[in-house]
Amino acid sequence: MPRYVYFFANGSADGDKDMKDLLGGKGANLAEMTRVGLPVPPGFTVTTEACRIHLREGRIPEGLPAEVNEALARLESIRDRRFGDRKRPLLVSVRSGAAASMPGMMDTVLNLGLNDETVAGLAEDAGDARFAYDCYRRFVQMYARVVLRLPGDDFEARLQAKKRARGVNQDTELDAESLQELAGEFRALVRERTGREFPSNPEEQLWGAIEAVFGSWMNERAIHYRRVHRVPADAGTAVNVQTMVFGNLGHDSGSGVAFTRNPSTGEKRLFGEFLPNCQGEDVVAGIRDPLAIEAMREWSPQAYTELVTTCDRLEQHYRDLQDIEFTVERGRLYMLQTRAGKRTAEAAVKIAVDLVGEGLLTERDAVLRVSPEDLELFLHPRIDPTAQVDVLLKGLPASPGAAAGIVVLDPDEAVAQGEAGHSVVLVRQETSPDDFHGMVVAQAILTARGGMTSHAAVVARGMGKPCVVGAKELDADAEGRGFLVRGQLIEKGSWITVDGSSGRVLRGKVATVQPQLTAEIRGLMGWADRFRRLGVRTNADTPEDARRARELGAEGIGLVRTEHMFFEGDRIDAMREMIVARDSAGRRRALAKIEPMQHADFEGIFAAMDGFPVTIRLLDPPLHEFLPHAGPEIEDLAVKMGMSKQQLTALVERVREANPMLGHRGCRLGITYPEITEIQARAIFKAAVAVQRRGVVVEPEIMIPLVADVEELRRQRAIIDRIAGEVFAEAGLRVEYSVGTMIELPRACVTAQAIAEEAEFFSFGTNDLTQTVFGISRDDAGSFLPFYVERGIYKADPFQTLDEEGVGRLIEMGVSEGRRARPKLKVGICGEHGGDPRSVAFCHRAGLDYVSCSPYRVPVARLAAAHAALAEVGERYQAVAV
Amino acid sequence: MPRYVYFFANGSADGDKDMKDLLGGKGANLAEMTRVGLPVPPGFTVTTEACRIHLREGRIPEGLPAEVNEALARLESIRDRRFGDRKRPLLVSVRSGAAASMPGMMDTVLNLGLNDETVAGLAEDAGDARFAYDCYRRFVQMYARVVLRLPGDDFEARLQAKKRARGVNQDTELDAESLQELAGEFRALVRERTGREFPSNPEEQLWGAIEAVFGSWMNERAIHYRRVHRVPADAGTAVNVQTMVFGNLGHDSGSGVAFTRNPSTGEKRLFGEFLPNCQGEDVVAGIRDPLAIEAMREWSPQAYTELVTTCDRLEQHYRDLQDIEFTVERGRLYMLQTRAGKRTAEAAVKIAVDLVGEGLLTERDAVLRVSPEDLELFLHPRIDPTAQVDVLLKGLPASPGAAAGIVVLDPDEAVAQGEAGHSVVLVRQETSPDDFHGMVVAQAILTARGGMTSHAAVVARGMGKPCVVGAKELDADAEGRGFLVRGQLIEKGSWITVDGSSGRVLRGKVATVQPQLTAEIRGLMGWADRFRRLGVRTNADTPEDARRARELGAEGIGLVRTEHMFFEGDRIDAMREMIVARDSAGRRRALAKIEPMQHADFEGIFAAMDGFPVTIRLLDPPLHEFLPHAGPEIEDLAVKMGMSKQQLTALVERVREANPMLGHRGCRLGITYPEITEIQARAIFKAAVAVQRRGVVVEPEIMIPLVADVEELRRQRAIIDRIAGEVFAEAGLRVEYSVGTMIELPRACVTAQAIAEEAEFFSFGTNDLTQTVFGISRDDAGSFLPFYVERGIYKADPFQTLDEEGVGRLIEMGVSEGRRARPKLKVGICGEHGGDPRSVAFCHRAGLDYVSCSPYRVPVARLAAAHAALAEVGERYQAVAV
Repeated sequence: MPRYVYFFANGSADGDKDMKDLLGGKGANLAEMTRVGLPVPPGFTVTTEACRIHLREGRIPEGLPAEVNEALARLESIRDRRFGDRKRPLLVSVRSGAAASMPGMMDTVLNLGLNDETVAGLAEDAGDARFAYDCYRRFVQMYARVVLRLPGDDFEARLQAKKRARGVNQDTELDAESLQELAGEFRALVRERTGREFPSNPEEQLWGAIEAVFGSWMNERAIHYRRVHRVPADAGTAVNVQTMVFGNLGHDSGSGVAFTRNPSTGEKRLFGEFLPNCQGEDVVAGIRDPLAIEAMREWSPQAYTELVTTCDRLEQHYRDLQDIEFTVERGRLYMLQTRAGKRTAEAAVKIAVDLVGEGLLTERDAVLRVSPEDLELFLHPRIDPTAQVDVLLKGLPASPGAAAGIVVLDPDEAVAQGEAGHSVVLVRQETSPDDFHGMVVAQAILTARGGMTSHAAVVARGMGKPCVVGAKELDADAEGRGFLVRGQLIEKGSWITVDGSSGRVLRGKVATVQPQLTAEIRGLMGWADRFRRLGVRTNADTPEDARRARELGAEGIGLVRTEHMFFEGDRIDAMREMIVARDSAGRRRALAKIEPMQHADFEGIFAAMDGFPVTIRLLDPPLHEFLPHAGPEIEDLAVKMGMSKQQLTALVERVREANPMLGHRGCRLGITYPEITEIQARAIFKAAVAVQRRGVVVEPEIMIPLVADVEELRRQRAIIDRIAGEVFAEAGLRVEYSVGTMIELPRACVTAQAIAEEAEFFSFGTNDLTQTVFGISRDDAGSFLPFYVERGIYKADPFQTLDEEGVGRLIEMGVSEGRRARPKLKVGICGEHGGDPRSVAFCHRAGLDYVSCSPYRVPVARLAAAHAALAEVGERYQAVAV
Repeated sequence: MPRYVYFFANGSADGDKDMKDLLGGKGANLAEMTRVGLPVPPGFTVTTEACRIHLREGRIPEGLPAEVNEALARLESIRDRRFGDRKRPLLVSVRSGAAASMPGMMDTVLNLGLNDETVAGLAEDAGDARFAYDCYRRFVQMYARVVLRLPGDDFEARLQAKKRARGVNQDTELDAESLQELAGEFRALVRERTGREFPSNPEEQLWGAIEAVFGSWMNERAIHYRRVHRVPADAGTAVNVQTMVFGNLGHDSGSGVAFTRNPSTGEKRLFGEFLPNCQGEDVVAGIRDPLAIEAMREWSPQAYTELVTTCDRLEQHYRDLQDIEFTVERGRLYMLQTRAGKRTAEAAVKIAVDLVGEGLLTERDAVLRVSPEDLELFLHPRIDPTAQVDVLLKGLPASPGAAAGIVVLDPDEAVAQGEAGHSVVLVRQETSPDDFHGMVVAQAILTARGGMTSHAAVVARGMGKPCVVGAKELDADAEGRGFLVRGQLIEKGSWITVDGSSGRVLRGKVATVQPQLTAEIRGLMGWADRFRRLGVRTNADTPEDARRARELGAEGIGLVRTEHMFFEGDRIDAMREMIVARDSAGRRRALAKIEPMQHADFEGIFAAMDGFPVTIRLLDPPLHEFLPHAGPEIEDLAVKMGMSKQQLTALVERVREANPMLGHRGCRLGITYPEITEIQARAIFKAAVAVQRRGVVVEPEIMIPLVADVEELRRQRAIIDRIAGEVFAEAGLRVEYSVGTMIELPRACVTAQAIAEEAEFFSFGTNDLTQTVFGISRDDAGSFLPFYVERGIYKADPFQTLDEEGVGRLIEMGVSEGRRARPKLKVGICGEHGGDPRSVAFCHRAGLDYVSCSPYRVPVARLAAAHAALAEVGERYQAVAV
């Protein structure tokens, strides 16, 4: 029979920090802190295994009661108090704690063990009746909500009524008598609602709480959170039962939360909030505005010094930013929790780099400390510094980045507007876990209340969404019409922009820009580059994009789409003339008009990528995209082309396709209209010759799209080689170039060996490959794909994260078959997956030479590639979560 | 150095019938007939290898002249004549002859060796000046056209002018003097056109003719023919040089062609045509109407008897129908060619079965003698016997089957109208190889002149197109306005129907029906069934189709498409109501209306397939197919549905898809609207219970379409199993059923192992699989796929013949992975490839359990499956071609 209970007290513990899977993050760290000698109230942890059995079989595991009773007896002995004792009652907290951090998603019961008799003992023992009845009313209130599943609002309403009746504002102003009455009223309410007495037996209370915590694993909020954060559904939660220490034991008591460094900037300075005479939940819930942690210094210099020393020890021990909870009971500090603190990507980078400087981390550790996903969040947009802004109000900069959206006031509306395609900002008085689904769809979050560690702030940082909290001038309660700022109504549906980096909220939709890399990131990237094997290129169609990507570390262009070279300005007229032309000569005449412009386009890109390879994809989209579809446009064009409207309409009708994604596009264009391939090849080679003459090191790689059979590549290649010969002969100058193909059709993967006979490189076009492998049109997937992902039918959206089982398997086949024919075949990927960290890791394992992604994802890909290489030798990134 | 020349004369020959690749069909059979002791004029064959060298290197292969000279010397010695001799000149014919038969596609020169001097010797030697000058003018005319490439019309015009001048109608009525003049005029015409003298040196003539035959391999007609008939482009032709025998040596001479049995019906009786006093080309060209072969009996009893005996010997020897050419010179028979005769499928079957009866073939040989492709041709439509017909005229039934089309008068117009989507009947005075491209696109062919062995007849039979020739009342020359029948104009563009089985031409577009199986075919099919391993099912959506397919030998239904069960009559209203419904209850209400009708549909199908499995595919097409798209229809529906026009238009717009082929269809419907799966499952199980109660043996196989991931199948299966349980419990009766999936997406192939955990059977949907593997929309492929096939970029249209390298490889992967998870997994194919012989052979090799095809292809698939099984033990069908 497995052991279900792990005890910790007075410097020794059954568990330690490496037992998170079994004890949950909270339990493992309580054990660890106890071992290290930090002041932790004694207690024990019921394992996640017990929870899993309970979930599976719906019963308390055999043997658990005996273990719990034994542990309780040890606590009684250590504290010299007894569970249910009228004189010296033992009170405990019961808290959830899973292996992965799920802040606020599951349940907690404090002050457990109170009833009408023990509360009197507590009052006498503490010499403070008000304190005892405050604990009692809190206990009944929490137990009713968490264990008995009664709605919290009724209890909250009674509390407010009591305050009104007594003419006070704060909970703390209620006297002992009022609180005793309130506890009575709460119990009566329970009786009324459930038809049963509130349980007064502490053991019954304890088992009720333990089972409620087990059950909270499956509540809707928790399920939703796990889905978003990809937490395994069957892990279960541990239960931590700990003797109570009291922050509400008068003015020399209090509770607080803190980060050992600033989780937003990474600055090395204690950062947190503190509230005197309260229990911990009050701080996090944002019910009263907490004090900044520095205020503790005056309030209790000794407790503050002890806190600072403790935080230093924790950082030395864990070698990372810690997020802690503590209580001061009559001047004495107790640690209730520590965990690696969630942080912004900027902070993650700064902290990792600083810790290397402090000698606590190696460079390799530092690289592993920053997740590519976090770095990606950091690369979110910011307010354009050149934009005119109209500051509506200011609050706390709770989660950096900037985003605009229309004002919505409740989470359901956020979801509705989001589904209708609108960008939304969720504006709330404060948020609770029930708002989570609205926060998921919002572009940004704005609250009137709460501090930097409030629910809204923590959740927004976790999702990388811009967030401003504690915007005191905001009143979200304007009868649902919008929100008030200094009495002025900002209507719902109107645009605002939230700047979570500065705490500002701006009127209207303000332009945003991408961030620059900080010195710390550049440093970290330098280390990452030393570990990675995979090359990182960019997808870029213009010299500007190419330059930007190069600054971000791109080592070449993996995909130049040439479509715009046919669409821009007047060029589309020439293209249309080509489509209308009756013969090859006519097509050639039309295309000749745009060749010089394309030549200039290529020169710019080659010059920007001096010294690096540039992969150019020949024209890909279906012809109908070049023709107008609406009435007046057709008339205009008909005049231009010298055709009748009827003729042109017939032509447009002829090139319209039932399934353009599977139509006359890709190399099928170059095969049926070889003139297009000719003009593109000529523009490329002329540009290459011109820049090489200027001393630019140019390495063009010409890529044929949508090849299904080697014969297509062979024929297109013949045209390209012929044009190259002509251009080089004319110029008296050769440029080294290569010809390869996109592998974006299943048939190309399975016939890769034959294709590699003609291809010097492969580039997997995973967007189209995913479409054809799944038989899903990306344009149409909206009607079922979100449903599929939400219900877990597909594990992830295959357009976001590469589908390893299906698409990935075909990629592996393509790589191995291709290299069978040509061992040195260069292989890359240029779909949007090239910037997705999990997909980058796959590309590493599949033996690709490089990934190519959009410029702003280049750093993400570099870091992901380093992680993938380190994972190969067993060193993995550990998610910053408890 | 290889040997280039193979000699044959007087009972011995260097070659034999098995050397077709080297000697061509004609050369190999001339050698064989010589060996067997048949009367063959001596000669020699220049190999295809020499031709290939000539094509490749553009020169006469080294050593060939010496070999030719040596062979010529042997001929001179045998015949006691000399090439170029003034007294006893040796004349030869020079004919092409490739390994594959390409009737009329390449060139021939007769009477070679004549000039102004040798013609006089020939006249004297034969005692017939008219004959000698007839040979001379023929020679100059043919040589000018074939070797010197001058247009034949000019020469034909001179011949006609000469006849007019002499007041005669037939070539044979021209006297010696006129023919001598004509030869002179022809030579003058050559001088005028080419600026050079007509070559009088026989050796120069011979080499000119040999090179011309080599070159004729690459003429446009030959290239086109090879493309249509899939003859390898690099095989080359042999050249047969043979001493001339003369059918134009007076009234006891003549030429003829014959089949040893009737090639249209298979009847065992000599069948052919004969023309006295002519050379062979006259018979085939249809210049004069030939006599039926029986007429020879009166004309020359001895020659006729010798012919019949010879034909018997050839059949005994070759164990097959022979197609022969012969010449009678002054009463003596000479064989000029034999080859396996092209025949209709009906004849092929009858002959094979008869030859088994005659002890010449085994049953296995007989099965191998009929190609599935031929059988397929036989299964072409015929005139509906219940149709009212208006017979316009009658001709010879040259190629069976019936088809309707609009009248076109020249091949280019046939192509143009065909491309415009019209069915056409090509109507010509007579056809020539230059008409081939028009015949390819025509549904049927009708000529005024020519016999059963005329060009039109032979080509039409080869392509399996209905053809009527020799319709004497027809005059195709009506100034391009149409054709005349007894003076009445049938305008071009008007509809006619050609019945190639009866020789009738009908006014208008007459209904056609599919044929019944003859006793011979049933017999042959019985033998075939003994050899095949692959099961053959049918695709059928109605009881009628199911019954028909069963008669044709189907062993179950491999695909019931259920779409029509939602479209028919009022049902579409319920379907539309479902699409419009806001919730699951509304959808269920709507669908409940059509469940009883579907129940009845399934009962009918199950009863028709009593004892056989029936695979039912759940609803597949995208939702938008159920909604109207045009204005008035939308208005009507809006009224019916109680919506505003705007609302309905918005809904239609919402379900419209960019790429419906890759959209919200297949199991994605059943996943997002489980009510559809429920109603289909309920209708199926209720029907199964009802028929089983009546004693029908029912075996439903429920097939989930478009599965990309096992999870889709798992969830659909759960619904089906639940409904089955409900229906069986209610009925108190269980029906055995299985649940499986279409494998029609690449991802299903590569994840087949996981899918097979949930699937009891796989059915490859190769239509969609081909679309996704190639990334080609069948609806849109018209803009490039024909171009691809024509230019040889793709070897075949992958929608007609399964692409083994790509699609096939994924199928093989799907089969092996699927059977890894479930060794007894039943695997079939239900795409249109299931009735394509080459694809059936692939399915056999890939280890499938069955193929499923449209009812009329069932016999084709049965035969193809037998051939595939026999091929496995090394016994292959040999194409009937020389």
